[in-house]
Order: sequence, then C-alpha cells, then structure tokens
Amino acid sequence: MRNLTLLTDFYELTMMQAYHHHQSTTGRKQVAVFDMFYRENPCGNGYAVAAGLAQVIDYIESLTFTDDDIQYLRSTGTFNESFLEYLKSFRFSGNINAVPEGTVVFPGEPLLQIVAPLVEAQLIETAVLNIINHQSLIATKAARVCWAAQGDPVLEFGLRRAQGPDAGLYGARAAMIGGCAATSNVLAGQLFDVPVRGTHAHSWIMCFDTELEALEYYAELYPNPCILLVDTYDTLKSGVPNAIKVFKGMRDKGIELKSYGIRLDSGDLAYLSKQARKMLDEAGFPDAFISASNDLDEHLIAELKNQGAKISLWGVGTHLITSKEYPAFGGVYKLAALSTDGGPWQHKIKLSEDPVKVTNPGVKKIFRLYDAASGKMKADLIALADEQLDNAQDLTIFDPIATWKRMTLKASEFTVRELMQPVFTNGENVYPSYTVSEIRQYAQKERDTLWDEHKRLVRPQIMPVDLSQNLYDLKQSMIAKMRG
Amino acid sequence: MRNLTLLTDFYELTMMQAYHHHQSTTGRKQVAVFDMFYRENPCGNGYAVAAGLAQVIDYIESLTFTDDDIQYLRSTGTFNESFLEYLKSFRFSGNINAVPEGTVVFPGEPLLQIVAPLVEAQLIETAVLNIINHQSLIATKAARVCWAAQGDPVLEFGLRRAQGPDAGLYGARAAMIGGCAATSNVLAGQLFDVPVRGTHAHSWIMCFDTELEALEYYAELYPNPCILLVDTYDTLKSGVPNAIKVFKGMRDKGIELKSYGIRLDSGDLAYLSKQARKMLDEAGFPDAFISASNDLDEHLIAELKNQGAKISLWGVGTHLITSKEYPAFGGVYKLAALSTDGGPWQHKIKLSEDPVKVTNPGVKKIFRLYDAASGKMKADLIALADEQLDNAQDLTIFDPIATWKRMTLKASEFTVRELMQPVFTNGENVYPSYTVSEIRQYAQKERDTLWDEHKRLVRPQIMPVDLSQNLYDLKQSMIAKMRG
Repeated sequence: MRNLTLLTDFYELTMMQAYHHHQSTTGRKQVAVFDMFYRENPCGNGYAVAAGLAQVIDYIESLTFTDDDIQYLRSTGTFNESFLEYLKSFRFSGNINAVPEGTVVFPGEPLLQIVAPLVEAQLIETAVLNIINHQSLIATKAARVCWAAQGDPVLEFGLRRAQGPDAGLYGARAAMIGGCAATSNVLAGQLFDVPVRGTHAHSWIMCFDTELEALEYYAELYPNPCILLVDTYDTLKSGVPNAIKVFKGMRDKGIELKSYGIRLDSGDLAYLSKQARKMLDEAGFPDAFISASNDLDEHLIAELKNQGAKISLWGVGTHLITSKEYPAFGGVYKLAALSTDGGPWQHKIKLSEDPVKVTNPGVKKIFRLYDAASGKMKADLIALADEQLDNAQDLTIFDPIATWKRMTLKASEFTVRELMQPVFTNGENVYPSYTVSEIRQYAQKERDTLWDEHKRLVRPQIMPVDLSQNLYDLKQSMIAKMRG
Repeated sequence: MRNLTLLTDFYELTMMQAYHHHQSTTGRKQVAVFDMFYRENPCGNGYAVAAGLAQVIDYIESLTFTDDDIQYLRSTGTFNESFLEYLKSFRFSGNINAVPEGTVVFPGEPLLQIVAPLVEAQLIETAVLNIINHQSLIATKAARVCWAAQGDPVLEFGLRRAQGPDAGLYGARAAMIGGCAATSNVLAGQLFDVPVRGTHAHSWIMCFDTELEALEYYAELYPNPCILLVDTYDTLKSGVPNAIKVFKGMRDKGIELKSYGIRLDSGDLAYLSKQARKMLDEAGFPDAFISASNDLDEHLIAELKNQGAKISLWGVGTHLITSKEYPAFGGVYKLAALSTDGGPWQHKIKLSEDPVKVTNPGVKKIFRLYDAASGKMKADLIALADEQLDNAQDLTIFDPIATWKRMTLKASEFTVRELMQPVFTNGENVYPSYTVSEIRQYAQKERDTLWDEHKRLVRPQIMPVDLSQNLYDLKQSMIAKMRG
C-alpha cells in the first residue's frame, strides 16, 4: 500500500497545527463530526453510484508520517517541533461510517461520516474527497453507459486517456462497479481480479504486407475469442471481406468458432454495422458479433441503438474514463457537530444564500424507504442518529425546501433500511472486504431498486431526499438563530 | 519508483506475444518507429505545453515483469510459456527522442518518437499516452489560466476534485510547469520541490464561538503570511470588518504586517473584491491583498479582470486540475516506419477520410523557425530525419493540406532550432534531469516566443505546422499508391 499521508492540502496541516496548539494550551479535547456528501448528480443523472471506500480504508490504515515527511514539513518553516513530534506518532483513532460501495446515492446525503478528534478529521478531508469523488464519478458514468447499452457488455478502454496512472487504474475499478463487463487495463485486472479484454490495434495490420495476412496471423494465434479489427484500410471493401475469409478459413480447417467477430473503430457505426451484419450473415456467420469503439458515450450508444445499429459489444474509452461531459463529482466535507471534553454535541451549520447549499447539522443517519410490494425505492430520509424508524405506523415525509411537497407511506406498505455501515471504530477497520465483482453485483441490485424513470439519461425523475421532522426542526431553529 | 509495467492495455500484450512468436518462428527482427502526437489543442488554445516526460522516463526505467506479474499473466490463459519466459528478462532497449517538457507544441508534430524492437515499442504505448496526455493537458490548461490572470500568481487548489491521487499529484506538477506559482498539494511539494500554500477552511471558523475569535487565533499563530477567509457568515458585514480588526490588533501589537490579506470564496467576486478593497484601504491597509477562489477558470478570471475586480491572487481548483471543459488531451501513438533485420526503413502511413487524420510517414524531426529580429516563432517544419536546414538561403514553407498557403522566410532573417532531444539511447537514459522549477522557467520563455495573438483564449491565431518538401512528397506518393 502506498503511503499517501502527505496527499493533502497544505491548509489541513496548518489547521491541524493550530488545533493541536489549541488543545495543548487549553487542555480541551475536541471531537468533530464531518459529513462527506455531494450536491448534484454527475451528467444530469438521476442518482450516483458510491465508490472508492476500499481505497479510503487503505489510505486511513496507511496513514503515518515518515521521517522524510516530518523532515519535509520542517523544511517549510511553518511547523513547530511540538506539532512535528505529535505527527510522528499520528494514527487515525476515530470512527467512520459509510454507505457501502455500489449503493445508489443522492445529493445531500452523507456518503461518509467521520467522527474523530478534530485534528485527525481535518487531515483526511482532502484524500477522502479525492478518492470518493473520483471513483463515484466514474462508477456513475459507467452506470449511464451500461444503461444506454441495454444489457450489451460494455468494455472499459480508456487507460490511455485517463488523467494519470491512478485515474486509469481506479477508474477501471469504478467502471466495473458501475457495470462494465471488463477492462483493457491489465494492472486493474491483476489488482482487482476483474476480466481484461482486448485484441489488436491498427498498427498490427500495418506491420504486415496485407490486411488479410495480418488478420490470418492473428486468428491463428488467437482463435478464441477471435475479434478482428476491420477498419484499417476500408471497412466494407477490405476489412469485413478479409475477416470473412479468415473465418471461412478457420471453419474449413475445422477450428470451432466459439466467440468471434469484428471490431469497428471509425466511420458511421450504424451504417457500417448494418452492412457488416448482412455480409457476415450472408457468408454464414450469423453468430459473429460486431463490437464497436471510437469516441462512444451513453448518448451516442443510445442513438445508435435507436437507429438499429447491429452492435452487441461496446468499447468505451475517453468519455467513460474521464466522465468527459462532467469530469468532477463535487463532493464536499462539512463540519456537522463538535464536542468538547466528551460533552454533548454542539451542532454546526454552514449557511449560504442558496438554500440547497445550507448544510444539515448534527450527527445523522440515512433511512432508505422502499415500497414493500415492488421492492422499489421510494425516498431517502436523513434523520438524527438517535432516531428510530419502522413501518409500524404511517410515515409522512416532506421536501425540506418545498415543504408542501408531502408523501404519506402507509404502515406495512413500506420497508426501511439504514444505509450507513460502520467502517472504522476507534481507528480499527471493522468493515468486511468485498471483491470488485461482489460490489458490481450489489450495485446492479441497487440500480434494480430504481424505476426506469429514475434511470433515464436525460431529465430523470428526481428521488426525494427528505429530512426527518426532528432534523428539519433543528436545522430551521439554527438558521433562525443565526439569521438573527 | 512504482512499477507500472502492467499499466497497459491487454491488446498490447496479445500483440507483443504475436510479434514475439513471429520473430521466434521466422528469425526476423523488426524495429519500429512510433510517433506520439496529438491532433487538437485543448480548450481551443493556440498551442499546448508538453509535459510528463520525466514520468515517462521513470516508467521506462522501472519496466520489469515481476514474478507476480508473470504469474498473473499466466493465469489469464492467453500467454504461452515461451513468451512469459521472454518477459522475465524484458527491458526496454530502444531509443526515444522527445520534445523537452515545457516546450510549446502544436497539433500533428511528434512529442515523442520511439525507435525500438516492435515488441518493446508496443508495450509502452498505453502508459506513454496516459502520462503525456494527462500532464500536457493540465500544463496547457494552467498556461491558459495564468494568461488570463495577467501575471497575478495562480495557485493550484484542485487536489480534492482531481481524478484520483496521481491526477492530483502529477496534475499539480503539470500546473506548475504551465505557470502556477504554488500548489496546495503537500505531496507534490515534497516530491517536486515546489512551493505549497494554503491557510484555513470555513470549518476553522465554525469551530470557534465567533468569527473574530477564529480569525484572531489564526493570525496569532500564522502572522506571516496571514490570509484570512472572510466569507463564512457574511463577507462585507462580518468577515472583512473582523479581518480588519485582526490586522489592526496586529499593528497595535507592533507585529509587522508583511504578506497579509483576505480570501473570498463565494458570492460575486467582482463586487465583493471592490467593496473589500475600499474597506481595507480606508482602514489603512492598502497593501493587504485580496485573493479569490470558488469555481474559477480562465474565462471567469478574464471577465473579473475586465470588470475591475480587485483580486491579485487566484486559487483555481476543479477547472484546472481536471481541465474541466476539455478533460482529455487526445494524444495518439502511430506507427511511422518499420525495419526488418536492419534493412532500410519501410515507411508506414494510416489513411483516413479526414485529411487531418492521415498520419505522417517515416522517421522525422521537427525544425522550429523563428523570426531572427523579434525572436518570435514563425512556424514548425516537420522533416525527414536525414534532412538538414539552415538559414543560409530563403526557405519557402507551405500548408500540407491547403498547399496554396505559402510563406517565404528570407535567408538570415530567420533562425532554426531542432526540437527533439535524445532521451533514451539503446535503452540508456541520456536525458538531463531538470527540476520542475527549471522546466517552469523554460516553459515561460517558450510562451514568450509566441505573439499574443497565439495566446488569445478564444479563437487564437493558428501556428503553421508544415511538412518539408521531401516529407510532403513521400506522403503524397504513399497516399496515391494506396488509393490507386
């Protein structure tokens, strides 16, 4: 595991030193609650897919200031020896609760809740945001692309366009969580035990005297799966006919054609795929599949599907690995409560001119409400941590800004699930380790709890994220008090 | 150094095995020339800033398949023992030439040229693209932001929104190369010896009973530089007056106010900065500076400047670290020539319906042409590697697509510089090591060779990138042959 302890903003360290100084001089110990949440779903989506928690756990467990780190910090001239001495034995000793990876989540609800000595909670802000923001972004984008592909496998092909090695590596992980069937990224395959796929490039074809020779050679070495790139010279006049020759040759030699087909990487994919389909069918290869790549995103895939493109396997690169149309998730990390010397929680709120940007105070939890009959999700309800909720009686929930938007769930007709799970308790990792494949399956089940209306790519139906009456009242009273 | 050997697309490995098999069975050794180049400047810019070469060098030097890597590859069922045995002793043995980091570059010209055994050149495609694409993107974006800031310092503040740890780390490096004055990223500060900056967050203010108390405490601990965040509650009614109280308190105590000021992080930055400026001036703090952050990019900075905003220090986060409006650089890696058993170069070209996408064949170099009097750049000329060029006689260059666009440079009125430098020779690193600070200075000088017309943020003047007559003739004859 890499030590990313200094992967933080400088101001976290200056604030830490100040908090440390405050505690040393006053003897008062402050414990803080920070919520990590986001305010807007990426790409106009109806939900996001939480991802990155496993890397946050790795990061927290590896937190330690090495001698080199201390020496570097000393060299900045900003830190005193008392603080540097404290850093030498720094370990994270707090609690973290989090929504499991793969869960569908919504704006305004905490994905992670950090309850820790203020000085510790402050350090980890930047890396927590960096990791969760990135992976949740790509997992959400992947879910959109897979939705557009309507069940066809989507392959993550973006490593060369990712924003550095980690963006490729953890982006591939997140893409798998979001629903991709495989990645081209070999390191991701090794580290996360996910399927890797890929065949050959145009340069392969160009290294041979003829396209046919190149394709034949490749098919001989890789008969299964056998996917031939057909657009190096001319897709319909040269590539597809040559691929058909190769497939015929294999059939004539008695080689069983199990998983085989062609890849289109340029030109009009709707037209070319339909023509190629005809040619393959007429040549007696109706089970040869047609895969496509070339600057695909969910919108183009949806359009190609609408136009009857005969493509059943989609390789998606740049748009997926960078979430090109919306490349930053925008998660934030906000103070929600503070306790001094073990005293009661002092609730904290950050006001804003924009009502949506006013934070939710206090120590909270999230109840997810489902329709009992269909199993589909109805709403999320953010409540205070000491609140209980069951379906023994009717429950009326309301929009916390447009409070006239109300909905009553009848007793027994809904079910309740609490979303956040303990991840660290007193600095100890108490969270189970899940494989990426397990998280991927869970994420698929999570998306199945949404009606299609919430999954629409453009202007989806908005899922209600409401506040419990208690939390709503607390928030209103704090706003009223601060406003005067 | 991290071993990123498996940070590659699976198809690079399947192609490698096929090339290795071809070589083993035929006994023929193939050496390839690949060009890494890009086709479009990010964000509509008039140029790009090459960056990432140092990390490519690290990557190449660390290339080695560990036992775990071999075991993993074996487990995929795709690779034979002969190939795996070859990988065990794999080292890069080829040549790489490259344009130095910080150089201004233009679409279509090679940033890197790889001349290596085909099987080796194939492996490194993906990681080379990943690294160069990312850093060149962010360096270019940073150059745009710094240009908009008209010489004001720009601080890179984007780590929390970067696409994973590396995107934050190497993004900070690239941002410095592109002209930023400092970063908030402590790890970048440590690894690349660049200045780190930062003060405190809203949560700092919220941890105290009053804003004034929080600001006073902070200023006591950090009197120099002393930058106070003033927008937690109400910028003009509370934050700025409190900051002024703190500055007065410091002055009264005889603390020398050297580098001090405020930070605005919300609201209308033009209006607020002008009002804050007045208040600070009237209170006797004309040298207090006003810094700003909050979703800034080059367009907003330019607009704020136009509106007379009194801001002299800019913190830029999300838009810079992700190059939000244009998050992928789009560099490609194309086969240009092949030699078998030490024979002559066989030139390679990739056709496309789009003339701009037709590749340039052969082993090439780049001449940069300057106006001798002004020192400003006139054009780049891509030529064959064996061509020589000096200013002893008139030189006529022409656009390789719109060939009627011609320009004649008079003898002695221009100067010539060859851009690509040797980086690896027979697998040995022969390139000097430069600090980020040195590269940043060089990049500034590079941008100074462009007229302002090329640096305009929107629809800049296009720099000509032409082909030598020899290269043009070679390309045309190859196109004619392949088409005919």
